[in-house]
Amino acid sequence: MTGFEPRDPAFESRVRESFKRQRFMATLGATLASVVPGEVTIALPFAEALTQQHGYLHAGAVSSVVDSACGYAALTLMPAGAAVLSVEFKVNMLAPSAGTHFLAVGRVRKAGRTITVCEGELRAFDPKSEDGGEGTLVALMQGTMIAVQGRPDLAD
Amino acid sequence: MTGFEPRDPAFESRVRESFKRQRFMATLGATLASVVPGEVTIALPFAEALTQQHGYLHAGAVSSVVDSACGYAALTLMPAGAAVLSVEFKVNMLAPSAGTHFLAVGRVRKAGRTITVCEGELRAFDPKSEDGGEGTLVALMQGTMIAVQGRPDLAD
Amino acid sequence: MTGFEPRDPAFESRVRESFKRQRFMATLGATLASVVPGEVTIALPFAEALTQQHGYLHAGAVSSVVDSACGYAALTLMPAGAAVLSVEFKVNMLAPSAGTHFLAVGRVRKAGRTITVCEGELRAFDPKSEDGGEGTLVALMQGTMIAVQGRPDLAD
Amino acid sequence: MTGFEPRDPAFESRVRESFKRQRFMATLGATLASVVPGEVTIALPFAEALTQQHGYLHAGAVSSVVDSACGYAALTLMPAGAAVLSVEFKVNMLAPSAGTHFLAVGRVRKAGRTITVCEGELRAFDPKSEDGGEGTLVALMQGTMIAVQGRPDLAD
Repeated sequence: MTGFEPRDPAFESRVRESFKRQRFMATLGATLASVVPGEVTIALPFAEALTQQHGYLHAGAVSSVVDSACGYAALTLMPAGAAVLSVEFKVNMLAPSAGTHFLAVGRVRKAGRTITVCEGELRAFDPKSEDGGEGTLVALMQGTMIAVQGRPDLAD
Repeated sequence: MTGFEPRDPAFESRVRESFKRQRFMATLGATLASVVPGEVTIALPFAEALTQQHGYLHAGAVSSVVDSACGYAALTLMPAGAAVLSVEFKVNMLAPSAGTHFLAVGRVRKAGRTITVCEGELRAFDPKSEDGGEGTLVALMQGTMIAVQGRPDLAD
Repeated sequence: MTGFEPRDPAFESRVRESFKRQRFMATLGATLASVVPGEVTIALPFAEALTQQHGYLHAGAVSSVVDSACGYAALTLMPAGAAVLSVEFKVNMLAPSAGTHFLAVGRVRKAGRTITVCEGELRAFDPKSEDGGEGTLVALMQGTMIAVQGRPDLAD
Repeated sequence: MTGFEPRDPAFESRVRESFKRQRFMATLGATLASVVPGEVTIALPFAEALTQQHGYLHAGAVSSVVDSACGYAALTLMPAGAAVLSVEFKVNMLAPSAGTHFLAVGRVRKAGRTITVCEGELRAFDPKSEDGGEGTLVALMQGTMIAVQGRPDLAD
């Protein structure tokens, strides 16, 4: 229960359709794990194709899935017809992105008419880890999304 | 001429070798365009595999190449034996990432013993554009890199 | 209960002494409200001397108290002898900073040996408001602090 | 010459009037040094009332003047009747803010109809320094400003 009231009852299918059009998510191997009002989770399995020079997930791959999670969390609360774009985001890398799979969560902190502010995070999971299944917090994001209206070429 | 004096004379080969180990850059189709002290440029051709839902380059793909350009710009000025990691970065998207190819530039603004602060940008190019070959500024980054020393497992 | 274990048992007096030396906090009228391991709260009454052009608290005044709250939250977990400096922070303004008083909270999300990452927020309170005493979330910060060691001129 | 064309010919007086209403600038001792289309400079003399615990300018005081410089740089390019608000900013501290006086410069990098992206910096000056009068780069900002229209209560 996130406490947010979606303005578009079709918010979930809208997010799922838009996610499918994000070709980059398929390139990364990312899938949509859950969509609730104000919160979206994306799953990403580890792949060598996504690594930086030390063998961990590249900070850019991390940012990509957390940015999409934040953007779609914002979209769940936008009215029908609006499109979502990332104005900016900032991401801190807290630990090496080591693990067999990852979950990116985006959460709305403030949904305005034009601007939505989100927080995001990436957690790393490893079946051999002793973290009790909670995973390790690997990255934190704070970002700004914008609702674009009246642009049929940018529909979501 | 960037005015920076590298502490490791082998800075260029070090950056080129490390870049080759960033498997994610190959996945994106990105290549190293130039390496000078304090400034690194990465080239990225447009590909549908990198797009967001409206057909433009995904902000995460943009961040990935600009982050690598900033990280390697920082590495050009680090002593031999040090590895570079992204502490954090912030990226503003200024315009839709439309074009046939893109250049990501990372520049050092302040190189400290531990912390290096960089600015980065992405420019979009299109042979049919009338921008006189300068391209369009698509994204701006400000980020913080750290030199990790004494960790043979993280050598660059 | 924040779950953090301070390495310096005198963490609270250390933070309180350092805060007193921040002349800018006195200039703003800010006081230290609470200091627990990994979390510090600063109280700020509204004053016309702190306003921007529309009569709300200036975003810089907001950043000042949230930055200090984050920096001191980081300091609660640093070993004796270390000093804390802000590497960088990013702040989103979510609503006009209107109210009679404000609370800035800084919380550690990841405490490393060198780098500590914090989240901060500012809440606005107004006795005439119907928010049930919870206040209004006005600003969100994500910032990076560094522990400086072996610099007696920078002791905290 | 910044290459920007203001939409409001009265841009300079508009910025100067709005700056005077920022009571916080007077509290800091900051004054408007120059206003040209897309670029604003604010001067700040050192004062002990603005310091952090080690005697340097507090990062919040730094952010305050650079944020105002960026916001007013954005306002120089906005149409008459629009008000400017800070959506968010990110600031890196590059060096201790030591000096007898400081200049904060805000520059527009992209002026959109709703969103304007700016870069800002703070330079420190000391007559006894041997920097040839250029000053020392102390802080770098990247921030997002928004034009608010149709809100007479927020006129600038």
